[in-house]
Amino acid sequence: MAQPAFDNLDGLCVNTIRTLAMDAVQKANSGHPGAPMGLAPVAYVLWNRFLNYDPKFPYWTNRDRFVLSNGHASMLLYSLVHLAGVVDRDEHNKPKDTPSLPMEQLKQFRQFGSRTPGHPEQEATSGIETTTGPLGQGVGNAVGMAIAQKWMAGYYGRPGFEKLFDHKVYAICGDGCMMEGVASEAASLAGHLKLNNLCLIYDDNGITIDGHTHLAFSEDVAKRFEAYGWDVLRVNDGNDTAGMAAALETFNSSATKPTLIVLKTVIGYGSPHKADTHAAHGEPLGPDEIKLTKKAYGWPEDSSFLVPDGVYGRFQDGIGKRGGAARAAWDKLFADYKAKHPDLATQIETLEQRDLPAGWDKDIPVFPADPKGLATRESSGQVLNAIAKNVPWIVGGSADLNPSTKTFMKFEGAGVFTAKTPAGRNIHFGVREHGMGAIMNGLALSNLKAYGSGFFIFSDYGRGALRLGAVMHIPVVYVFTHDSIGVGEDGPTHQPIEHLASLRAMPNMVVLRPGDANEVAEAYRYTVQQKHQPVTLVMTRQALPTLDRTKYAPAAGLQKGGYVLADAAGGKPDVILIGTGSEVSMVVEAYEKLTAEGVKARVVSLPSWELFEKQDQAYRDSVLPPAVTARVCVEMAAAFGWERYAGPTGAIIAMRSFGASAPLKDLMKHFGFSVENVLKVAREQLAKK
Amino acid sequence: MAQPAFDNLDGLCVNTIRTLAMDAVQKANSGHPGAPMGLAPVAYVLWNRFLNYDPKFPYWTNRDRFVLSNGHASMLLYSLVHLAGVVDRDEHNKPKDTPSLPMEQLKQFRQFGSRTPGHPEQEATSGIETTTGPLGQGVGNAVGMAIAQKWMAGYYGRPGFEKLFDHKVYAICGDGCMMEGVASEAASLAGHLKLNNLCLIYDDNGITIDGHTHLAFSEDVAKRFEAYGWDVLRVNDGNDTAGMAAALETFNSSATKPTLIVLKTVIGYGSPHKADTHAAHGEPLGPDEIKLTKKAYGWPEDSSFLVPDGVYGRFQDGIGKRGGAARAAWDKLFADYKAKHPDLATQIETLEQRDLPAGWDKDIPVFPADPKGLATRESSGQVLNAIAKNVPWIVGGSADLNPSTKTFMKFEGAGVFTAKTPAGRNIHFGVREHGMGAIMNGLALSNLKAYGSGFFIFSDYGRGALRLGAVMHIPVVYVFTHDSIGVGEDGPTHQPIEHLASLRAMPNMVVLRPGDANEVAEAYRYTVQQKHQPVTLVMTRQALPTLDRTKYAPAAGLQKGGYVLADAAGGKPDVILIGTGSEVSMVVEAYEKLTAEGVKARVVSLPSWELFEKQDQAYRDSVLPPAVTARVCVEMAAAFGWERYAGPTGAIIAMRSFGASAPLKDLMKHFGFSVENVLKVAREQLAKK
Repeated sequence: MAQPAFDNLDGLCVNTIRTLAMDAVQKANSGHPGAPMGLAPVAYVLWNRFLNYDPKFPYWTNRDRFVLSNGHASMLLYSLVHLAGVVDRDEHNKPKDTPSLPMEQLKQFRQFGSRTPGHPEQEATSGIETTTGPLGQGVGNAVGMAIAQKWMAGYYGRPGFEKLFDHKVYAICGDGCMMEGVASEAASLAGHLKLNNLCLIYDDNGITIDGHTHLAFSEDVAKRFEAYGWDVLRVNDGNDTAGMAAALETFNSSATKPTLIVLKTVIGYGSPHKADTHAAHGEPLGPDEIKLTKKAYGWPEDSSFLVPDGVYGRFQDGIGKRGGAARAAWDKLFADYKAKHPDLATQIETLEQRDLPAGWDKDIPVFPADPKGLATRESSGQVLNAIAKNVPWIVGGSADLNPSTKTFMKFEGAGVFTAKTPAGRNIHFGVREHGMGAIMNGLALSNLKAYGSGFFIFSDYGRGALRLGAVMHIPVVYVFTHDSIGVGEDGPTHQPIEHLASLRAMPNMVVLRPGDANEVAEAYRYTVQQKHQPVTLVMTRQALPTLDRTKYAPAAGLQKGGYVLADAAGGKPDVILIGTGSEVSMVVEAYEKLTAEGVKARVVSLPSWELFEKQDQAYRDSVLPPAVTARVCVEMAAAFGWERYAGPTGAIIAMRSFGASAPLKDLMKHFGFSVENVLKVAREQLAKK
Repeated sequence: MAQPAFDNLDGLCVNTIRTLAMDAVQKANSGHPGAPMGLAPVAYVLWNRFLNYDPKFPYWTNRDRFVLSNGHASMLLYSLVHLAGVVDRDEHNKPKDTPSLPMEQLKQFRQFGSRTPGHPEQEATSGIETTTGPLGQGVGNAVGMAIAQKWMAGYYGRPGFEKLFDHKVYAICGDGCMMEGVASEAASLAGHLKLNNLCLIYDDNGITIDGHTHLAFSEDVAKRFEAYGWDVLRVNDGNDTAGMAAALETFNSSATKPTLIVLKTVIGYGSPHKADTHAAHGEPLGPDEIKLTKKAYGWPEDSSFLVPDGVYGRFQDGIGKRGGAARAAWDKLFADYKAKHPDLATQIETLEQRDLPAGWDKDIPVFPADPKGLATRESSGQVLNAIAKNVPWIVGGSADLNPSTKTFMKFEGAGVFTAKTPAGRNIHFGVREHGMGAIMNGLALSNLKAYGSGFFIFSDYGRGALRLGAVMHIPVVYVFTHDSIGVGEDGPTHQPIEHLASLRAMPNMVVLRPGDANEVAEAYRYTVQQKHQPVTLVMTRQALPTLDRTKYAPAAGLQKGGYVLADAAGGKPDVILIGTGSEVSMVVEAYEKLTAEGVKARVVSLPSWELFEKQDQAYRDSVLPPAVTARVCVEMAAAFGWERYAGPTGAIIAMRSFGASAPLKDLMKHFGFSVENVLKVAREQLAKK
């Protein structure tokens, strides 16, 4: 598109962004003024001249996405959201007519309950696409959003409707993001997938918290990205708005690969004493320096939160008009599409609301009783496939472990997502767990049902991303297999021990460790329906018996997190055996022996602590009556946390160390996981009474 | 060095390595034969012609290091250790005259209690430099070892003794390592530091578990490493032993930067049906295919664990003689050094045993009582500096957070480690937490006392490396600051919640969260003395009162993990208040108010659960008498796990959600962390009695 020349009003807009950031940080007496001051020109050019974004419909499906990966520059984003007049939204992301960030909110920067927290939070503020702050994550989110655009265009695109999904993803990141491995992983995959809808702007300001980047960072970032398969453009002056516009135009009109724009900026631009130093990074400039800086900008020195005349109007004429027109044209296009492809249009509307199509669960299998059974990773693969074939927007993959995690979608037409086959639903993430997690967050924020799989041990590698999914309440699904010392010969480096406890300790995350194939089916039934709940599914490598549900309670009990699977006659047990996952069948076997001996025993299957804790006290007490203190908890994982259910006198059969390399049967014997040991401990518990 | 041409016996040696791997994996019916088969030639050339390593003194200080980052290829390493005749070691790493891996051990591959676990474990097997398996970690370990060599040479080198520390570090890695961000981070830093003693051999076999690497990995690895500042050499045929020798010679004689050798290999080389497919990666070839492969090698088809005549001798004549001579020359050189620089030689001997110099603790400060106090990150910085100036081989740094974590060594002569100043003790790791952890492991394996710091929240990013430190029982020290919602305005993305629980759940790790400056001093006193114990020190951002230790119990109680800090007259409390870190002073204040009201209260400071659990039952019961069930546990972190100390009726004041962005005082009020709330809950506890 031909662009008018930049004029004085553009300069005023840029300095408005800068001074709002300075003033807000100063008022909060906390925050990061330097990056917004350096990045204001590029952000202004991007928003006001390129971003296809309608401030009056901030969650319009085909909007361009903007991600601020260096989230500490949050005031940059808040200033833009304010000046562009982004409106609020309801719980369905429909626009409201109130502003997302009125000026009072900028003045409440970093205060309790404000919409302007220290780092951008997508739940807190309409117009914020993703929660950022932990460095590098936003780069991965942007890659995920770019994949989502390609997939939507690939899957739902039809002749004549090429513009239905043609949005771009723009992200800004800093030196810190560039040093973090999560961004490297995501960038490598983006290059592989030729995501030419992705534009990453690298704020090359040469400053980090420790000082100049040359202390620890002297690589050639541009060359590295070329090696990943990106196009690299350069703008050597952070105030060269025309140069930036030209670079963005190049990306916008002709990219065949993802584009990196290396932008040389000056942190804290304009501050006489702090520009180009790390003093501008993470603390207020101070009142005196702010005055001097405003003077340097030609700004009224004693002004505060000043938006000069014409500034709002310039945004209205820029992003407002352009975005509004684009959105209106799209609405019309979508109406045409709906007339021609009503089923597909309904799918799009359904997925945008994170709803499910009718019949999504019709093929979930019921597994017959089978003493030999199958690994939960196997039943997981079957259930996932049975659901995914009826929910087209389930997309996902593994970190190079498909043959092991069994999460490949095999049904006809599932396909693999590549540059040439963008409608494919299986994503090969490569050996990149952290990048996978950050990309999944981007997919979920685009309302695709995203899953990712790997060995449970490597949840550690991806934990930074996993936590952000939990912070954002987005329905990402992790399928982690090889969940215990059941890994066997691969040994302690591959046997998860503390991972269940460490994820149970994480707020907002639901961990589900199903005990047999039918609990697996129930676990997916729960998971797929979630709109705001990240879930970690934890599956075995080894085969588990499929319990006879005519004899034991239905697996639907899983929906409550924990349930009585088998009970003493009359429902008055003297001892309770509690197990999860692979240990459920072990305690069932112990229960059968105890029952045969005339002992009144109960089995509780406890696949999800989080769901169980959400039940009311009466239900929980009905499952685990406080009066029954003889208890045996069995889990092939760290004992940590089990005191909650064992109580002060109950027993915990669990791991107290790392595992070892050996066949599983030897490990189970060594670490005390056997029916005999459960019986022995149960009898000790009964003897205490 | 001039090399003789390769002959048939060399070929026999290579195929011996291959067939031992095939046979061992087959016997175990589990493991990874393909990578050893492809890598045998380069590993053979490296070990037998280049590695300065004396199999009879496997822990000789100046030995070259060999790291197998793709640890699943463990049988490659075990075959080499066996064939080279590496001997066993005692607990001081002195050589014994028994072999590390006699043939029986190869036959016990992946069996319980063997020295040949599924992935290499440095504690299990003499000759294994580091525990690998989780991909990418070995690359970081190698970078750490290379830094350690440079530092030893820089700090202890003296004119005429340039060869005292001139060893090299060689690492082999696979595609998976190359995709993992941890390796990217470490490689970027290695390039920055110009570690020309580091040679990384990339097994470019084009195969991953999912299939061919082109599924997810099409970047130009060589170009990427050039961008990091590495030299890149290429060997295009995995059987071109002469080409490999030439590349290794180039590295060995003339490298000015770290060197990457991109080596094209064929996974499962020689296997008629499985070579160059992922079927050769992670499962036995099968008896029939093994026969066919042996036939292709010209090997007796029905042989098993065959070592042909001459093979042991070739290793003895190669690595054995060369390494033995080099080690003997070094012993003489060290004797000369000791004569000329006795103090420095003693230091080297001391550090090699992970002992401490006399007087290491003489400057640890005692902090006077101070109601205003200081942040534990501040006292941490002071104590660290007070110890480090007396222990020259404490080296460490932060992931670009020195001004925040306060771990910079400021005393005269501490210096910064760079290519030009290799005696510097402060390492700028950059914004690379995972890389930092893997590098720290390498430093610790070289017997330097390594620490690394960052915000506690980002322990997540480095968790993969942190866990391997715990698996290896190496004395790495993490100093994590900003340990709770005390972070304040930076908000939920930066406020650790579940991190204490998730590290407490990790076997082998000791977590210490000191409650005031004098507990900080005790925490370091404990930590610095450890030889086999990784420690995570957790510090506040905000100021804490320094308790009056004439009034309360001495901070030395920290050494037991938990202790009675203040007690009811007569030592018979009715209620126990338990706190850690920043909450200790809060419960002390509550205790004072209760005591003034005539309530019999006790305060327990519980800085380390792990150390407390190591005490005998009598001690633990003396601190937390089981009969006293009225308890209030206070910690500004996830409640998860506190049932252990609260008991079934005690109260837990802790976090049940993520935090929020706001000034700390507002957060504390909102989340119930106040003396008033502690008093209220304590009174409720007492009322229950």
